Amino acid sequence: MSNTNAIPNVLAERYATPAMRALWSGEGKVRLERDYWIAVLKGQKDLGIPVPDGVIEAYEAVKDKVFLSSIMQRERVTRHDVKARIEEFCDLAGHEHIHKGMTSRDLTENVEQLQVFRALLEVQKKSIAVLAAFSKRAAQTRDIPFTARTHNVAAQATTFGKRMAMFGEEMLIGVQALNELINTYPARGLKGAVGTRLDQITLFNGDTSKARALEERVLHHLGINAALDAVGQVYPRSLDLQVVSTLTHVASGAGSFAKTLRLMAGHELASEGFAKGQVGSSAMPHKMNSRSCERINGFHVILKGYLAMAAGLAGDQWNEGDVSCSVVRRVMLPDAFLAMDGLLETTLTVLNQMEVFEAVVEQELMRYLPFLLTTTVLMEAVKTGSGREAAHEAIKEHAVQVAKDMRTGKVAHNDLFSRLTADSRLGLSADAFEKLTTHGRTNMGDAPEQVDYFVERVGKLTAAHPEAAAYQPGDIL
Amino acid sequence: MSNTNAIPNVLAERYATPAMRALWSGEGKVRLERDYWIAVLKGQKDLGIPVPDGVIEAYEAVKDKVFLSSIMQRERVTRHDVKARIEEFCDLAGHEHIHKGMTSRDLTENVEQLQVFRALLEVQKKSIAVLAAFSKRAAQTRDIPFTARTHNVAAQATTFGKRMAMFGEEMLIGVQALNELINTYPARGLKGAVGTRLDQITLFNGDTSKARALEERVLHHLGINAALDAVGQVYPRSLDLQVVSTLTHVASGAGSFAKTLRLMAGHELASEGFAKGQVGSSAMPHKMNSRSCERINGFHVILKGYLAMAAGLAGDQWNEGDVSCSVVRRVMLPDAFLAMDGLLETTLTVLNQMEVFEAVVEQELMRYLPFLLTTTVLMEAVKTGSGREAAHEAIKEHAVQVAKDMRTGKVAHNDLFSRLTADSRLGLSADAFEKLTTHGRTNMGDAPEQVDYFVERVGKLTAAHPEAAAYQPGDIL
Amino acid sequence: MSNTNAIPNVLAERYATPAMRALWSGEGKVRLERDYWIAVLKGQKDLGIPVPDGVIEAYEAVKDKVFLSSIMQRERVTRHDVKARIEEFCDLAGHEHIHKGMTSRDLTENVEQLQVFRALLEVQKKSIAVLAAFSKRAAQTRDIPFTARTHNVAAQATTFGKRMAMFGEEMLIGVQALNELINTYPARGLKGAVGTRLDQITLFNGDTSKARALEERVLHHLGINAALDAVGQVYPRSLDLQVVSTLTHVASGAGSFAKTLRLMAGHELASEGFAKGQVGSSAMPHKMNSRSCERINGFHVILKGYLAMAAGLAGDQWNEGDVSCSVVRRVMLPDAFLAMDGLLETTLTVLNQMEVFEAVVEQELMRYLPFLLTTTVLMEAVKTGSGREAAHEAIKEHAVQVAKDMRTGKVAHNDLFSRLTADSRLGLSADAFEKLTTHGRTNMGDAPEQVDYFVERVGKLTAAHPEAAAYQPGDIL
Amino acid sequence: MSNTNAIPNVLAERYATPAMRALWSGEGKVRLERDYWIAVLKGQKDLGIPVPDGVIEAYEAVKDKVFLSSIMQRERVTRHDVKARIEEFCDLAGHEHIHKGMTSRDLTENVEQLQVFRALLEVQKKSIAVLAAFSKRAAQTRDIPFTARTHNVAAQATTFGKRMAMFGEEMLIGVQALNELINTYPARGLKGAVGTRLDQITLFNGDTSKARALEERVLHHLGINAALDAVGQVYPRSLDLQVVSTLTHVASGAGSFAKTLRLMAGHELASEGFAKGQVGSSAMPHKMNSRSCERINGFHVILKGYLAMAAGLAGDQWNEGDVSCSVVRRVMLPDAFLAMDGLLETTLTVLNQMEVFEAVVEQELMRYLPFLLTTTVLMEAVKTGSGREAAHEAIKEHAVQVAKDMRTGKVAHNDLFSRLTADSRLGLSADAFEKLTTHGRTNMGDAPEQVDYFVERVGKLTAAHPEAAAYQPGDIL
Repeated sequence: MSNTNAIPNVLAERYATPAMRALWSGEGKVRLERDYWIAVLKGQKDLGIPVPDGVIEAYEAVKDKVFLSSIMQRERVTRHDVKARIEEFCDLAGHEHIHKGMTSRDLTENVEQLQVFRALLEVQKKSIAVLAAFSKRAAQTRDIPFTARTHNVAAQATTFGKRMAMFGEEMLIGVQALNELINTYPARGLKGAVGTRLDQITLFNGDTSKARALEERVLHHLGINAALDAVGQVYPRSLDLQVVSTLTHVASGAGSFAKTLRLMAGHELASEGFAKGQVGSSAMPHKMNSRSCERINGFHVILKGYLAMAAGLAGDQWNEGDVSCSVVRRVMLPDAFLAMDGLLETTLTVLNQMEVFEAVVEQELMRYLPFLLTTTVLMEAVKTGSGREAAHEAIKEHAVQVAKDMRTGKVAHNDLFSRLTADSRLGLSADAFEKLTTHGRTNMGDAPEQVDYFVERVGKLTAAHPEAAAYQPGDIL
Repeated sequence: MSNTNAIPNVLAERYATPAMRALWSGEGKVRLERDYWIAVLKGQKDLGIPVPDGVIEAYEAVKDKVFLSSIMQRERVTRHDVKARIEEFCDLAGHEHIHKGMTSRDLTENVEQLQVFRALLEVQKKSIAVLAAFSKRAAQTRDIPFTARTHNVAAQATTFGKRMAMFGEEMLIGVQALNELINTYPARGLKGAVGTRLDQITLFNGDTSKARALEERVLHHLGINAALDAVGQVYPRSLDLQVVSTLTHVASGAGSFAKTLRLMAGHELASEGFAKGQVGSSAMPHKMNSRSCERINGFHVILKGYLAMAAGLAGDQWNEGDVSCSVVRRVMLPDAFLAMDGLLETTLTVLNQMEVFEAVVEQELMRYLPFLLTTTVLMEAVKTGSGREAAHEAIKEHAVQVAKDMRTGKVAHNDLFSRLTADSRLGLSADAFEKLTTHGRTNMGDAPEQVDYFVERVGKLTAAHPEAAAYQPGDIL
Repeated sequence: MSNTNAIPNVLAERYATPAMRALWSGEGKVRLERDYWIAVLKGQKDLGIPVPDGVIEAYEAVKDKVFLSSIMQRERVTRHDVKARIEEFCDLAGHEHIHKGMTSRDLTENVEQLQVFRALLEVQKKSIAVLAAFSKRAAQTRDIPFTARTHNVAAQATTFGKRMAMFGEEMLIGVQALNELINTYPARGLKGAVGTRLDQITLFNGDTSKARALEERVLHHLGINAALDAVGQVYPRSLDLQVVSTLTHVASGAGSFAKTLRLMAGHELASEGFAKGQVGSSAMPHKMNSRSCERINGFHVILKGYLAMAAGLAGDQWNEGDVSCSVVRRVMLPDAFLAMDGLLETTLTVLNQMEVFEAVVEQELMRYLPFLLTTTVLMEAVKTGSGREAAHEAIKEHAVQVAKDMRTGKVAHNDLFSRLTADSRLGLSADAFEKLTTHGRTNMGDAPEQVDYFVERVGKLTAAHPEAAAYQPGDIL
Repeated sequence: MSNTNAIPNVLAERYATPAMRALWSGEGKVRLERDYWIAVLKGQKDLGIPVPDGVIEAYEAVKDKVFLSSIMQRERVTRHDVKARIEEFCDLAGHEHIHKGMTSRDLTENVEQLQVFRALLEVQKKSIAVLAAFSKRAAQTRDIPFTARTHNVAAQATTFGKRMAMFGEEMLIGVQALNELINTYPARGLKGAVGTRLDQITLFNGDTSKARALEERVLHHLGINAALDAVGQVYPRSLDLQVVSTLTHVASGAGSFAKTLRLMAGHELASEGFAKGQVGSSAMPHKMNSRSCERINGFHVILKGYLAMAAGLAGDQWNEGDVSCSVVRRVMLPDAFLAMDGLLETTLTVLNQMEVFEAVVEQELMRYLPFLLTTTVLMEAVKTGSGREAAHEAIKEHAVQVAKDMRTGKVAHNDLFSRLTADSRLGLSADAFEKLTTHGRTNMGDAPEQVDYFVERVGKLTAAHPEAAAYQPGDIL
């Protein structure tokens, strides 16, 4: 198949950051493999396998000379991708000492797991940055009274900051699952064709302890915290499911936030903001398109598709393994991480640039507040001597009528309190209603304290990962 | 985001064919868009919009000058991908006449649908080629007696050809659904920002009939058979679901076939074959790895992931449309078709190269045949004068013992008939058993006729699409 | 497993209609099976298999005596569900003539396909009723000017009726795919253990034509329009994928509609209405919870889950078939249809009861209309003698300020036109703006005509299916 | 909707155990709710809310009187399920003190989470039992030499026990994730309509600390280890995703095992065994249908469908929450746990009953062993004085011919070593080959030690959960 009409990976090209791309690029993988081969070779030498002086140095000297087209040319001859990469590296180094006692999977499984592991660390870093941004926004808007909605209609008062903390907390739970995954993710290790370590044991003339010692060194090189033991040719593909489902989990707080910001933009309560210099449509200055939030939701749909692929592989191992998963993992693993990277980068940008239109927030609250306070009005009326039943009747009558009048356009504002002021059955003054309103607007229950607690928890995380917390996104398309 | 660590689309680079890649490449799309703009412009001119002489010719003269990097540079300034492509085309042509009265979606929705439509035709072509190959193989092996299995254990006799026809028939049903989709797939058309045709109507000074006439011409240019009418900004995303689910359906016959060939290879009954010059492992000459069949199953898992993405978009339209689907469709549509292309190409290769090991097929049949014929033995014994109950008891006794002996390794072959010959309770000669076996091996019910009927139906399809039927795959990795 | 803590099928119990439940209930299935056995028996008798007089009549006399607990008791002994049902039917009839030459799958595959087929017809009926309701609503609101939204913010004017037609048209495309599926859905037929018809052929002493003639009669009894030929033990499971994906497709128009109605309810533009007697919260009379629309979206998510199950089975046939799909299909097939039934029933109810609050619709349009008309203002200003550039500058200046003032709460209404009236640079009178507004509010392009065309197409469908069009939903929870 | 044609939940009726059914039954949920209400009421009384003496006792006296049909009758009147259950409980108790200051979600979210939490504990228990069974089988077969397969063809030697440990280890990783989930799963708590605790704070006359203290008591009652803080009306639905993805993960080891046992049964190497008294088909005594293993794989496909539903809800929260997830969760949560319960019960049964046919295992190994030992033969030949190149040529020549002869049926057994004995180019005696074979058959690398380590790790888990380890499954269908 010729190279005309080359098609780039769209997630890498348009949305992912250089750091994440570096992990999944062809060059990047070749480098990881070469480091891995050298680590194995060093280990073998230390443990007594004869490796002439200068050989390791020769490999190290050329390990950054990555020529993908040369490797691809070799693969078209050998029809074997790993063989092509061995030959290239050996030709460059002028020696044939790597890959001793190894099968392809001893290389590829571990290196792919290393890509996954490092990509998880990258996701962890940016997730903490996103949490820091949620925390900052929540603190800034901690006390802004705000109409909470259920079923997409006004329900009770809260604060804007608590809404931010709510989505942040959803993400925080996901990040805790991510941290746990990073701590327990097990590498396959150097175990030969069917996992019995037979070939390394043979290489060491039957000395099992040396084969195990070599694997220890290789795992130390990888820096992965755990290892599999009774594994077959491949690591269990349910690990990929755990990885992709954890990404989808971590993305969920951002997904809910983005969806809600799209709703808020529809009411002009808030906007995702614009980059410096960017303007809305000059013809339609009210246009606050939530392009980035829509994209966040799109990334989440993409992740769920890769989750379906990962689920399609889990629990489907035939015997010690086969490669029906190979083409799937070539697509799913990089693309899930590239999409996740784009999602986090976009979320961070939105959190940095979003605007809250407090006047509209206030208008909305005032539109609904009187309805929310009718029970309190009743209690106050009774205190001032009105009969409970008469007062209840009066309130209900007016409330229903106001709702109807607003819906039919007879009134533009919720004038329930002025109608009730005018109704002698209640005996409450305009001043009394003013007080009620003032109190109602500031009584948000525990909302501000919940913000504080969220900020505190994120603070612990950012204190432990200061570099992550300070991360700033690049420009997004 | 810089261009270092460029990551190619792995499905395009490793598996898809040039024809399919051309449809989804950046260059290819720019060409389709330019053709579309010119078609609109011609239509507008014909219908009275003033377009100076030479303008259309100027656009046509430069339409193949596609410089993606120049376009990308413009996009980084304008932050608007369509705007960047308009400017590039106009600068090249030296005029500013395209895109009149159009919004971005008037261009992109239709051109993306055109990509989908042409990709469907490409899939149709290759699917017919695969059906032709199934048909050929089924005809070749029409009469080879073969052990059919249910629950993965021997069940009844069939023929190898019928098994091939069975998987072919599954695919045929999918192809019929594909043909129907191609016939009914509706284009969005030229309908403006929210689908009311307002902008084109305004351009034609309120002449609605001209706006409609223009759309007719544009649809004719696209060559798509149907059109939407009361559509919003975007075509309903459930159409994408129909497309991807139809691909998954068409792929299912190939999936079942590949999975079964992997099972057959495990029994050495058949192999997916090797390319000319390719050998199995020289150390392990028995190795008949079903790499390509595994890959076919892998492609199917990938398609199911894109199906999940398509489902994630269906029925989720907010108002007249938004772009939360945009990033998903940038990934899902090309990649689903590229994976499908790889799947068909690989299936065709396997069907061309597969081998049937008739001796092993025969051994397997002989291993199980005596068990399958015990009822007939009973009837024959009774005919020759044995008591029914005594004969039944004798048969059961021996059959159970043979099964046990084979499983415990006491015997290597199914010697039930020689044991029964030796048992005087039955009174049947070795000759009688020989006849029974001979008849049992050739009595496959309607299996051969079912092959004929399958071949006949595929024949009608290939007669209607001779070019498709003659298609031969390129080399695969 | 005892019967304490019995758990009903929640979809059947809470949401599905009696007609759909009848198709999937244990009793219903037993009846379908008995009809099928009798049809086979009649066919066999006609074709020469000896069946004593009175036997068929005896079976027919007891076929409605369905005692599920008796059957279950038998199954606990035999460990074979079909065997238990054969014994029960034969004991009731006092004969042992059914199931001759048949395997379990000859019964169950065909009867399950019959359930699917009849359930598809039920879905077709209700889908047409929903389309009729969309059509009626679209016609009623054909000319109500309405703010179309893209990215969830105001974009251009349309009519309410066109928005209804838009969602209706999405559903119409799905229904066309459904109709095609109904016309082409193929039954497995009476083909024995591995699909070769061997057992029926043996029953007819080798007369293949009689075995085929019997199958013809059975297919005629089922009333399914097509049949498979070279099938194995089971019909290809990709047929289930086609069924469930078509359901998901048909549901998508309703899904998009429900989601958008939830958005509209958030703006108080419309509500899904209430059943007679039902009131919103007495405390919060503005509460218009879109419970039913939320449920429609929930049903769609459920369908997508069953789609994942169907995809999980497609293309995974081992040899002539196995039963790893069995438990999946016991769950997926009934539950997908029960969910679909609930979705259609709920959608029909919402379409019947929904309310449009025209005054709020009007307020919203007036809020945004001035922005939408700025281009026209410019043209008018130039006509009256203003300089183009000065006019453009004036308009932009005011428009940006109005947007800002609305967002910061300085003004509650869009007063752009009064500001422009006061600006001498434009020279346009209040009267001129009044005219512009009036025209702008009624110029909806082709929107009303698109409604007409949708109504016309639905009219053809309802004319062909008058009973379906007249269907009215029951009360929903 | 009437009660005719009642449809039971098929997963509950046919596959789940009484313990799991009890958690999800209508009765079971009513009981959990009543306990919860009583716990809240006690807490309120302790904290100063006036509750007359005898009231709590009155509720406790009737809490087990669960009449579902009476509740359903109330719901048909009130159209509100929670209201119906409040009325029923109060009428039974003769008081109206429960649900004070609570909204429906304060009840339902927590009680549903309690169901999930207890169901997770049930899954944990049975998973440990399955691990114990894997461990037992692995220990029993620790040293049985066995042909490991990759690509479904013979690859290298291992032991049967190591294969068991391999699948067990996959499950062990899933169980570790499950344990972590159980430790961190957070309850929503008693936080009112939008999560601000406003209503409880109001009930306690503004005393925030009392509202928090009440929640502490309620959480203590639930026994869940963690709690959410800045939550909205509903707990984040990504928690459901974490739950269902963890179930799918835990199921994967069983899935891979079941699939491989189906493959082994096809080769007659092993069978899933039969219940006491059960026999294979008397006509076909070789039939070892892997019905239960097929069902395990089916359950896994079902779980993946519920995973798709859970993913469909995650990250889709609108504002403080809505109920579009309600119908999905009514289906997904119970059914995912019921399917998981069936999967574990079936896996445990298979592990208890499975048989290994060691003679066939030995036959298979002998068929392939000579190919696996060709490198060793070469080394031995050189030691005895043969030329390396001549020996290599001889080996390759014979090996290729043997493979061909076996496939074409010329030989039934792998006679490579007798051919090599006869070839003078090698100079190796029959005795030498005998020794090679003997050694090759017992050199399985680290396989037995890997079994030991797996057994040790499971031993720690079962020591910590002795009751779980001792769990025995009921009879399965």
